[in-house]
Amino acid sequence: MNRTESLQIVKSHLKLARYEHTIRVADTAIDLAVHYEQPTDKIELAAIFHDYAKYRDLDEMKRWIEKSTLPKDLLDYHSELWHGPVGALLVEREVGITDRTILQAIHWHTTGKAYMNTMEKIIFLADYIEPGRNFPGVEDVREQAKQDLDYAVFLTLKNTIQHLITHNQKIYPDAIHAYNHLKSKIKLGE
Amino acid sequence: MNRTESLQIVKSHLKLARYEHTIRVADTAIDLAVHYEQPTDKIELAAIFHDYAKYRDLDEMKRWIEKSTLPKDLLDYHSELWHGPVGALLVEREVGITDRTILQAIHWHTTGKAYMNTMEKIIFLADYIEPGRNFPGVEDVREQAKQDLDYAVFLTLKNTIQHLITHNQKIYPDAIHAYNHLKSKIKLGE
Repeated sequence: MNRTESLQIVKSHLKLARYEHTIRVADTAIDLAVHYEQPTDKIELAAIFHDYAKYRDLDEMKRWIEKSTLPKDLLDYHSELWHGPVGALLVEREVGITDRTILQAIHWHTTGKAYMNTMEKIIFLADYIEPGRNFPGVEDVREQAKQDLDYAVFLTLKNTIQHLITHNQKIYPDAIHAYNHLKSKIKLGE
Repeated sequence: MNRTESLQIVKSHLKLARYEHTIRVADTAIDLAVHYEQPTDKIELAAIFHDYAKYRDLDEMKRWIEKSTLPKDLLDYHSELWHGPVGALLVEREVGITDRTILQAIHWHTTGKAYMNTMEKIIFLADYIEPGRNFPGVEDVREQAKQDLDYAVFLTLKNTIQHLITHNQKIYPDAIHAYNHLKSKIKLGE
């Protein structure tokens, strides 16, 4: 499936602003893939489809979580966390993409997890730093993105967890596992 | 075992400043127990012995974790997290306290966990707010301690997790489970 075909499919599932975000995530992910000498084809597909389920009805996503093998604890957390796992499932069923690496990158793009591979890290990071994003601290992450992929992902997780805690929001445990895992991999002072 | 006997045992295992902290934790815990209409005897014992293993040799604590049924993942985290679980184990073996509720309160006093009971919450909180403590935000927690036990424990977890993240330290997953669980129990705005 080429870029034009993929974008056409995804466009019908997204609002315009989200579609434009998707294109920026894809371009950012390809840029990172080239920089880190990774094949770009699967990374581009994962980026294009990462928000495929973003606007699915919440009740429909809930039903998919309940009747699939997806972890049921997702239902105890903010519905913003559902579109990644449900998206991976629907991209396989509805679009016919069966490549596990693409589906996993879509699955984990919001929370992260321990032991992410390079493709998963690139999609996770591209979603956070694409040029339309304006989070506090995003400039630091952009600067680090081509210096040290692990550190950039660690900073993204740190910023996201701090933001959630400040706003009294629950933290999905896999985000903490991702943060802890990268803290063990990289060497940082206090 | 009465207060005098307990304090005498624990004193030989602690530095003077830590022994004085222990007395303040015990007094704070009793005060909270009375306020929340809980029996004070077990809470007092748990408070007196909560730091029993604080100054054990790190290699000895590591061996106890390795050869007991304690979770091995403790070894991937800061050794500051070991003295609670190892303390519970040693208080049973060396002091002869077998009451599970006392041992559990000692076990979880540093990290917290989901579904803490009132005694566990009181020990966790007393350790944080005893009058010798001077953490940023501790005054807010002290004010809440007699208003809303769950909210005070939630605030303690929130402060502790924020402090650790700011200093790039790992977060023990049970602390997140405790935070998430209390967030579900209490009603808070963002």
